[in-house]
Order: sequence, then C-alpha cells, then structure tokens
Amino acid sequence: MTQIHPPVDPVALTAALIRCPSVTPAEGGALVLLEALLTEAGFACTRIDRGGICNLFARWGRAGANRTFGFNGHTDVVPLGDVAAWTQDPFGAAVVDGFMYGRGATDMKSGVAAFAAAAIDFVRNTPPDGAVVLAITGDEEDVALDGTVALLDWMDANNEAMSVCLVGEPTCPNVMGEMMKVGRRGSLTAHFVARGVQGHSAYPHRANNPLTAMVALIDRLARYELDTGTDHFDASTLAITTIDTGNTATNVIPAQCRATVNIRFNDAHSGASISDWLRAQAGKTSAATDVAFDVTIKVSGESFVTPPGALSDLVAAAVQAETGITPTLSTTGGTSDARFVKDHCPVVEFGLVGKTMHQVDERVEVAQIHQLKSIYTRILTDYFA
Amino acid sequence: MTQIHPPVDPVALTAALIRCPSVTPAEGGALVLLEALLTEAGFACTRIDRGGICNLFARWGRAGANRTFGFNGHTDVVPLGDVAAWTQDPFGAAVVDGFMYGRGATDMKSGVAAFAAAAIDFVRNTPPDGAVVLAITGDEEDVALDGTVALLDWMDANNEAMSVCLVGEPTCPNVMGEMMKVGRRGSLTAHFVARGVQGHSAYPHRANNPLTAMVALIDRLARYELDTGTDHFDASTLAITTIDTGNTATNVIPAQCRATVNIRFNDAHSGASISDWLRAQAGKTSAATDVAFDVTIKVSGESFVTPPGALSDLVAAAVQAETGITPTLSTTGGTSDARFVKDHCPVVEFGLVGKTMHQVDERVEVAQIHQLKSIYTRILTDYFA
Repeated sequence: MTQIHPPVDPVALTAALIRCPSVTPAEGGALVLLEALLTEAGFACTRIDRGGICNLFARWGRAGANRTFGFNGHTDVVPLGDVAAWTQDPFGAAVVDGFMYGRGATDMKSGVAAFAAAAIDFVRNTPPDGAVVLAITGDEEDVALDGTVALLDWMDANNEAMSVCLVGEPTCPNVMGEMMKVGRRGSLTAHFVARGVQGHSAYPHRANNPLTAMVALIDRLARYELDTGTDHFDASTLAITTIDTGNTATNVIPAQCRATVNIRFNDAHSGASISDWLRAQAGKTSAATDVAFDVTIKVSGESFVTPPGALSDLVAAAVQAETGITPTLSTTGGTSDARFVKDHCPVVEFGLVGKTMHQVDERVEVAQIHQLKSIYTRILTDYFA
Repeated sequence: MTQIHPPVDPVALTAALIRCPSVTPAEGGALVLLEALLTEAGFACTRIDRGGICNLFARWGRAGANRTFGFNGHTDVVPLGDVAAWTQDPFGAAVVDGFMYGRGATDMKSGVAAFAAAAIDFVRNTPPDGAVVLAITGDEEDVALDGTVALLDWMDANNEAMSVCLVGEPTCPNVMGEMMKVGRRGSLTAHFVARGVQGHSAYPHRANNPLTAMVALIDRLARYELDTGTDHFDASTLAITTIDTGNTATNVIPAQCRATVNIRFNDAHSGASISDWLRAQAGKTSAATDVAFDVTIKVSGESFVTPPGALSDLVAAAVQAETGITPTLSTTGGTSDARFVKDHCPVVEFGLVGKTMHQVDERVEVAQIHQLKSIYTRILTDYFA
C-alpha cells in the first residue's frame, strides 16, 4: 500500500530554519531539524561534525549509484549587524507584504528549504534510478575549513560521490532566473614588506627609502593589465588594500613600510602563476633600488569554471521553463563552496535573488521560494529522465 | 690709567657653559653667566625674553654705528638621549685625551664661548671704530619661534642693527677649517589625504581606490627631477616620509589614505613655487582618477644664499690664515638661525667640527676651541681694520 504524503511546503520550512539562531559556528537547531525531516523521508543521514562545526550528509538511494544528483548548501548565517535597525525580528520569519524577513532568508535557508522540499517530494513521488545527495554545512560564512571540505573528505573516505552538484546559493542580482554561476574567479592576497635604510630627510642619498621602492612597485602592479578577460570570465583585477609606514617624523626617512594587494584572477592564471609574477616584480624593484622585499602570499581560492555543457544546459532549461527567462552563465562574485565541490564533480550554482543578503532586514519574496522549489524539482526530474 | 685684563679663556668658558643644564627651553644659568661676563667687559646687555624663552642681546659701542659686527649663537642644547650610554657626565665638561665631553660641547657652547672670548679681548685691547653685537638665544634646537626671531624683532623695534653677522654653528664635517656655510636649502613638508570611494576588493570598478591614485601621484613626485643643482646649491631633494592607510581587511578597498613628503629645495625654487607644483600635480592626478586630494603644506624655511663677496672673503681669509686650509663655501645641511638673520643683514656661518653633535658622548677637541677664538679674533681685527 502506497502511503500518500502531502508535498513539503518550502516556505514553512524556510520559516522553521530562520527561527534556528545558527550564526556561524552555531548549529542553532537547523541541521537537527533537517536531519529529522530527511530521515523521516527515507534519506540515510550522517552528521559529519568536525572542529566544532556541524554538517549533515543525507542520501536517498544507493551509495555509489551511477547517477547521483547532489545539492550543496549551508544553514549557517552571518551575524545580525545593527540589531536595532531591523524592522522585524531577525529570527522571527515574519511575512510582510509578500516578503519573509530574517537572517538567512536569502543566504541561504530558503535555498536549502527549496532543495530539501524538492528532493523529498521527488524521491517519494517518482523514485529515481539513482541517488539524491544533500550535503549541507554549518560553516560556509566563516573560514569554511570544517564545512563542505569536511563533507567532501568524509565522502571520499566512505565511497560516497556525487555525479553532478548544484549549489543553492542566491545567484540572481535582481530578477528571479536571470543568472546562474558556472565558476568563480580565484582570490589571492599578497603582503609586501620593504626594508631600506633609515636616514635624515635632508640627505636622501645617505638613506635608502623603502617607500620610494614601494610606490614604484605598487604603481607598476596597479597599472599592469593582467588580461582582458577570457571566454567565461571578466578581466582579472588587482586592488591595493593598504600601505602603512607609521612614521610620524617628517625629517626621518623610515627603514620599512608595508603594503597589501588583493587579486581576483580568472582562468588565464593560477594562484602559483600570479604568485610568481608578484615575486618577480618585487625582485625587479629590489634589484633596481637595493630595497629588500619580503613577499607573503595567501591564495584563498583558485579560479574554476564548469564549461557550458550537460549540467548547465539542464539547469538553464529548467529555469527557462519555470520563469520564462534564460539565465546568463556567469563567473562573477566572491567565493562560494562551489570552489571545493569543483574538485569532486561538475558543479553549477543557481538560487533566487540575493539582493538583501548580509544586510539588515534580509528578506525573501515568498513566491520565489515556491518558484525555486519548482525549478529544483524540474532539474531532478529532467536529470533522471 | 689703562687696566690690564688677562685674556678670556674660551676653554674654561665652554666648560662653565656645559655645566649649565640648558636643554631647550631651560636657560640653565648659561645666559646669566654670559650676561655677567659681558657686562663686566663693558657690553650693554639686554635680556630679550619671550614666550618662556630667555635670550641675550649684548652690544659694545654705539647703537646704530656704521660698522657693526654681529655674532649669533645659542646656548640651549638638545636632550641627552640615552643617559646611561654616556661615558662622561653630559653636564660635567670632563676633559679626556684632549677632548671636552658634554651636551653642547660642539653644538654650540664652544662656539658661543669662542666668540664671546674673542669679542671681549678684542674690544678691550683694540677698541674699534664701530660696534660689536652678540645676539645669543636659548631657543634654537626646538621650534625657534621665540629665539633669534625675538632678538631680531626687538632689534628692529629699538634701532639696533648688525652690518654683517657670523653664526658660530659647527660647520666643518671632519677637519677644522674645511667648510663654511653661505646659505641653506629651504625645507617644506606636504601632507596629502586622498579620498576615494570604499568598496569590495572583488569589484574595484564599483569603488574608487584612493591608494591607486596616491601611489601614482607619489611615484610621479619621487621620480621628478626638481633641478640639477644651482651655482651654490646641490640638487633639490624629495623624500617620501610616510604613507598610511590603516585598513586591515584584505577584501575592502579603503575610502582614504595619507602620505607625507619632505622637500629640501635650493634657490631655483621658493616655498610658494614648490607648493604650487605639488598642488598642480595632485590636481592632475585628481582629474585623471576622480580621487580628491587634500594638500596641506608647511614651509619651515626658504632657501637663501649670501653670494660670495666681502663677508665670505673676510671669513675665508681668517680661516686660511689660522688653519692653513681654505674653506669651501657650502649650502648643505639642515636649517639654522641664519635663515632668520639673512633677512636682517649678510650672514655666513663658521664653526668647528660638528661630528658628534646631538650624539651620546658629544665632545669637542680642546685645541679647536682655542683655534676658533683665534679665527674669530682675526675676523674682528680684519673687519675693523
């Protein structure tokens, strides 16, 4: 006898998740709630907790199935900011004029609710020949060391895999359906320390001013055109974020100064190639000026792109069918957990309008949550068709 | 009946002055001692105290005499620095291996002692047809607002004048007699504040980075050749002394940053012309970048030169006669009170070897004090001959 289940309401689920105070690293009850719901629906759930962070792995179907569709998302949220400035309780999920308010309303409790609701209904109504995986982390908004990375590490160690993965982050700047993400730029921060010889301002030839060398180097870096963009990416960018000396004496040439630049680079480069370039430029200035440069570089993410193909076509078609809009395939924006997933399987990102993410009065249009569930349902249906 | 006086010992007088703890702005007993000595020798003494600073004006002969030879110097000294590092009492005037130790030993209690001793003996032994003025300040080492300026202001108001003036600062780098100063470069400090638009490092085109504009401006200023030197001056110099931002977030482009440059300029420029150039350069960068620059400029001294002529010839000849060395006519070094005197009358500077000035274990070769008194005596003799 087949048991008849009512469809899962993604709006009620979003509200329930918003009421869990899960500011990173707090679990706040969000993953506990999802684990209960998914277990009840026949998903095999495993809590992958690491370094004080909670994560949830849920699979419907057989481990190692040939076709396994994965969803990735996070239930942790950024801090509230100016609490007094919120017009609604940030953990209240109040609906006003068609918008649900709360921290995580767009980033990304609505996305998690939409894919969880879609996945549960889909496996109940049309059990696929394959598996559906939900990899949900409680550590995306902070350093993300023990979040999606912990899930993927555990999956590797336990013969769990996803054939493809959709990250449910908000991806649309203004209009539902207008944009999906197929990659992200890499990000790298370089810290320079220039060491010269201190002296009196009146006798610059007896000193060796590290600032003269530093501005020559940094100006050259800032003027350099790293590239003019690639097939899937805008041009790479370099931003000087700080230069500091701390010398208050106007008659003294200081012995050292510091500068930092942040580079967002596309697939014409790698963290290593950019690092080589930066060190070579510092070396060139050092050779010309005799000012020594210490260069410390931190690559926080490599660029990646999932080339347009089966996965992006599948998602784009579903978005088009449900919204009437063909999404552009973008690689703009900051980093997301897709940067970890891309080493595991093809990954794209699609979610609703993210305009108010991280802001006071973060809110989501209720109708978009329903739309998002419909899109995710269609993606599952088409994938297993 | 002519009273016979023994010559004034400039070494004993230097020691007595060193024992007066006259770190600016303290008088320390130095000017009191000189006033008593000069009054006894027939000088009309007036204390010109202003703003908590003590100064001494002493004249032998008639006010308004056609030929009035002036000496200028200071009895205040810089702080002791690391007291524990001194091998001798900084106010003790101990003589070790032919050197007298103490703060002010070279800068410039020995200079004041030498010209006071020379002047007293000279007017006693060969009373000139004219006047000898000693303008001695207790405020040269600090801001110098109420020192030589106060003396000159009072002189103007009281019909007191010098026909020519010799500043007794130490002027010889290594060997007694090798250098006199006939001018000084000007000095100017410019503070720049660049104001742009804050933003996220990932989207530099949505921000307007003040640091990009600042390094472009400062690098251009540092590379610019202000001049290649003039008849009496080395090339003007520009030193970047500090650049500061204070931004610790590597994903944020800051809204503003600050930079300071110090310029030592020769007689091809003025404080006003350099200021105009700096403002024009900031304006040019501002027009190109839309980053606003606030420019605050402080001119601490204009360049000046007393062209080689009667006064420099007189001093050079006396130095040559007493030391066997012909002094070069230099315009190097920092500022001195000659920058104020030059608006009053022709001025040159000559003194002994200044190697240890402002240092721990400041010391003067005792023999040089005697030599300096002889040189100053010869200058007076030749001037009134």
